[in-house]
Amino acid sequence: MREFTVTFRPQARSVRVSQGTDLLTAATKAGIILSASCGGEGLCGKCLVIVDKGTVKAEASRLISARERQRGMVLACQAIVESDCEVTVPAGSVEIHEHAGHDAEEFTKGVVLERESRFVFSPLVRKVYVELASPTADDSTSDLDRIEGALKPKAGAFRISTRLTNVKHLSEVLRESDFKVTATLAYRDGALEALSFEPGDTTANNLAFAFDIGTTTVTGQLIDLTTKTVLGTRIAFNKQSPYGSDVITRIIYASEPGGLETLNAAVLDNINEIIGDLVAACRVTLSDVYAVVCAGNMTMMHLLLKIDPSNIRKAPYVPTVSVFPPVNASELGFEINPKGIAAFLPGVSTYIGGDIVSGVLACGLAENEELSLLIDIGTNGEIVLGNREWMIGSAASAGPAFEGSGLACGMKAVKGAIDKVVMDGNLDVQLETIGAGAARGICGSGYIDLLCQMLKRGVIARDGKIRRDTGSRRIRKAETNYEFVVAFKGEDGAAEDIVIQDDDIENLKRSKAAIYSAVIALLDKVAKSITEVKKIYIAGGFGNYLNIANSIFIGLLPDIDRGVYEFIGNSSLAGARMSLLSHEAFEKTSELYKSITYLDLSAEPNYMDEYIAALFFPHTDLGRFPSVRL
Amino acid sequence: MREFTVTFRPQARSVRVSQGTDLLTAATKAGIILSASCGGEGLCGKCLVIVDKGTVKAEASRLISARERQRGMVLACQAIVESDCEVTVPAGSVEIHEHAGHDAEEFTKGVVLERESRFVFSPLVRKVYVELASPTADDSTSDLDRIEGALKPKAGAFRISTRLTNVKHLSEVLRESDFKVTATLAYRDGALEALSFEPGDTTANNLAFAFDIGTTTVTGQLIDLTTKTVLGTRIAFNKQSPYGSDVITRIIYASEPGGLETLNAAVLDNINEIIGDLVAACRVTLSDVYAVVCAGNMTMMHLLLKIDPSNIRKAPYVPTVSVFPPVNASELGFEINPKGIAAFLPGVSTYIGGDIVSGVLACGLAENEELSLLIDIGTNGEIVLGNREWMIGSAASAGPAFEGSGLACGMKAVKGAIDKVVMDGNLDVQLETIGAGAARGICGSGYIDLLCQMLKRGVIARDGKIRRDTGSRRIRKAETNYEFVVAFKGEDGAAEDIVIQDDDIENLKRSKAAIYSAVIALLDKVAKSITEVKKIYIAGGFGNYLNIANSIFIGLLPDIDRGVYEFIGNSSLAGARMSLLSHEAFEKTSELYKSITYLDLSAEPNYMDEYIAALFFPHTDLGRFPSVRL
Repeated sequence: MREFTVTFRPQARSVRVSQGTDLLTAATKAGIILSASCGGEGLCGKCLVIVDKGTVKAEASRLISARERQRGMVLACQAIVESDCEVTVPAGSVEIHEHAGHDAEEFTKGVVLERESRFVFSPLVRKVYVELASPTADDSTSDLDRIEGALKPKAGAFRISTRLTNVKHLSEVLRESDFKVTATLAYRDGALEALSFEPGDTTANNLAFAFDIGTTTVTGQLIDLTTKTVLGTRIAFNKQSPYGSDVITRIIYASEPGGLETLNAAVLDNINEIIGDLVAACRVTLSDVYAVVCAGNMTMMHLLLKIDPSNIRKAPYVPTVSVFPPVNASELGFEINPKGIAAFLPGVSTYIGGDIVSGVLACGLAENEELSLLIDIGTNGEIVLGNREWMIGSAASAGPAFEGSGLACGMKAVKGAIDKVVMDGNLDVQLETIGAGAARGICGSGYIDLLCQMLKRGVIARDGKIRRDTGSRRIRKAETNYEFVVAFKGEDGAAEDIVIQDDDIENLKRSKAAIYSAVIALLDKVAKSITEVKKIYIAGGFGNYLNIANSIFIGLLPDIDRGVYEFIGNSSLAGARMSLLSHEAFEKTSELYKSITYLDLSAEPNYMDEYIAALFFPHTDLGRFPSVRL
Repeated sequence: MREFTVTFRPQARSVRVSQGTDLLTAATKAGIILSASCGGEGLCGKCLVIVDKGTVKAEASRLISARERQRGMVLACQAIVESDCEVTVPAGSVEIHEHAGHDAEEFTKGVVLERESRFVFSPLVRKVYVELASPTADDSTSDLDRIEGALKPKAGAFRISTRLTNVKHLSEVLRESDFKVTATLAYRDGALEALSFEPGDTTANNLAFAFDIGTTTVTGQLIDLTTKTVLGTRIAFNKQSPYGSDVITRIIYASEPGGLETLNAAVLDNINEIIGDLVAACRVTLSDVYAVVCAGNMTMMHLLLKIDPSNIRKAPYVPTVSVFPPVNASELGFEINPKGIAAFLPGVSTYIGGDIVSGVLACGLAENEELSLLIDIGTNGEIVLGNREWMIGSAASAGPAFEGSGLACGMKAVKGAIDKVVMDGNLDVQLETIGAGAARGICGSGYIDLLCQMLKRGVIARDGKIRRDTGSRRIRKAETNYEFVVAFKGEDGAAEDIVIQDDDIENLKRSKAAIYSAVIALLDKVAKSITEVKKIYIAGGFGNYLNIANSIFIGLLPDIDRGVYEFIGNSSLAGARMSLLSHEAFEKTSELYKSITYLDLSAEPNYMDEYIAALFFPHTDLGRFPSVRL
């Protein structure tokens, strides 16, 4: 088959693709993630590109305007490469702006949080060093019985088992190490499974990965299970994004021939890239990594385990599995020690996945006596209300705006992301970036500050539109709408202008409205008022920081005593990490998931009214936000 | 690579082999099992063949006598094929006489024995049919939770688990069967594992195989786990035999490059051939077979699981594993349902393997109050003495004579084997064959009868030599020694003369001496007399029949009240079958194996004296056999 080279501008990336490949696929291969919410079906009209040189075979589409056609634009997903090509990618077609430089950050380096020590330290995978008596004529017990006998006193009430493959070289390992060996034991299915026997004392080398597999972002963390420390964290946009921006389009894509395999390979690629990166960056040995724990929503888990997710989007919305069997990491394609294991946080239902169960575990809501609330701001906004007696959960389609996706200058909460913004009366902006790096874009917490400041300083009206009449040099007309320049090229090290546009604000407004109205609908359902809630945990991929006061100011969160709020960061990741550090924590989730009742918001009569009323800053009804003075 | 055709006579079998192949390998490929106790190393000088036509490259060997060389004989293991060849195989070079016709028999057809119903019927693999409620908006539990919920009330105290692979198509299976499905559940590692979910009610189709993997013979039995019946039995000589006639030579062979793989493939071939044969003969469906339970000695189990057995023959004789982890049948290469399981009876030590533990389970010795003895007459003669308080076990190198191996007309206890012999004063012989078939050879029980009758009628002296002076037409000189013709060609349907030779008797005498003296040494060790033993179980591959009185007459068994004896057949196979029919029986063995103490006979000062004293019929000391009148 013939191969062609496709070069993308302005990214200046080239890839070799075989004849018949479309430009969307070629772009993905080049690491450029185009907008394609239809999953590459030619239906959403978002993946517009300009072919500057070379030949493509492209169908005419009524989704391309006359002006766009005049500029030579085609839909990348419908354009088949027929020669070497040079292609320009307009900024508006890019779903995810990766920007330059390292798009990853170690933000939780150091010891794990106090909150996580609620459970006894007893990692999911333990290493135990034993010195065995050498066999004699009077003691010719088999090698396996000998080592199991030595391990038994250290296993408590747990039965020890092992697999055949782990036994094959046992006799060599024992004899080359003079019967001094380290057993790696994993808690699985109510027993302790010996995963490996290594010569000598290797107990100091016991590593694992915690993963939050989000629809938009994938976050991985390397944990030292001996010292209980986080060695490093990496965040990446989910490589499934080109095949659909939300779970519904991905499920549709998965039902096409080869679709499930493609989506599975994409997220595996994310995982293995993060594993490889962190192992290299932290200078540790890959074979010391024996466990991966993943938390994610139902669809993400089905795709990761290569299970057909199609029933998730067909009434009555039944997942195939909600408690995932433990598996060998190698069976799934996780590139850690081939004898290592993978475990998954269980989900409640199609809409309340393992990421939320993980969050409930992490924040401790299920142990609280007082009424508590967990709000997880991700691609969906999930909410769990309750205490140790009962829990009710729900999900709002918030979209990925607060994850920095789908916005002109949005990015993840990594080094260089603007995460704090203060504005003076002259509309001049003081900003902080994560890691004090050169400003590269704006992350969720930065957008919250920015919206709050723009609202306070009158840059935007309560409907979110940028005022055209301020006379500020920072406000200008962009291609299709107005924008506010947060940082001009050169300011704070910005390589180009960093802006927020009318469309971005509209996106963010819808997200905040979806989350706020879901909270209110859930409280209404159980006839509770927000003032009865004594603890509100805010979770999301905001990095280390979220300004609660500003979140209230823009109407994202209810206007009550700030002291009730606690920002807990990525709680899905935290629950996965806790599961690694304590098998008791992990086992708790298999009870916990059963006690959360799911509430379908779309069946709640007041939800849509609440949502529409929330499409103002902070809200149509200012009486709900008494502390907000405009 | 060039290929040549090698034709063997008188078997009239041809095979194609590639250049460089030796004649021993070629013969094995042709299904002709030559004597080669050294494992094909050119050391034992037994695999003599005559090359009639064609060229072989053969080293001179001092193991070939001048007369043999004159006849054109070469060692098959040292003769490399260099052209098409025609080869004559002298009868004396054949280890195992397969004879013509079907060399397999269904001898235990019908319901299982009463003895085996000591344990509650609760098969190792169960099928459970459930009709599930279809999901609704109010009940959108995941598919796996739904089926596990329905199975739970039927699982008792057992936790239900399943593997990822079994979940992949669950949603389709449930929906195509309108949520009426059969779960196949296996007891493993203290839990119930769901192996498969099948549409509809398939509980009537639940099959399994029990195997006794002996050094010399492999016996398999197809069991219907629903009706508790044996559907059929097959016996075959172990295909590892050409690589060594005993466990020591096989362990040596296994340590050569590729040796372990070759031996493993050979026994797998045995197993899969028996599985295929019985499934076809019983007209059942292979995919209904979900379990295989195997019992065998330590070396056989290591080779079957492809675990290096080398430490078994190095002091202090430590096996790698004695309690074998449960495995997936497909992982081992067992050709049953790919989701099926394999389980193995645990062994005590290098010398008391899972076959004996299986036998102890089968006969019930470990539950007896009175002192009992199990004597298993196989390639080794293993003995267990004790009761429910204590057990001591030992092994004697008896050799495979009573299994019909290494004898001029020996065969397994299958259709056509002479298993009963009566002789009159004229030395005329009345005989019975298994299945009343045409006489094809002599099996173990036939040899015991024959020796007894020959001794009684004076055909042999007490040293076992055939008398040259009787004048009987049945006694004649054979090539190297004398022989007695049990059946002339035509008598009892014999296709050729069936004989017993001096060498055969010598072989049998050594076997019986090894077993008898081991029994005495074991009793001496614990200061018990044979008269204190209230129950003696005799096990071995003798088919349905063993004449205890005759066994005593030749000195194989101690001369006490016949009522103490019970012949229980292949008890290794019976224990495997019991383990299939009751998981409680199987689990009992993991306790049982620990309570048997091994006694090393070679370290017992009186054993060798006892052995030498037993090298007469019935014994040097006739006072030990008061009932024997000669």
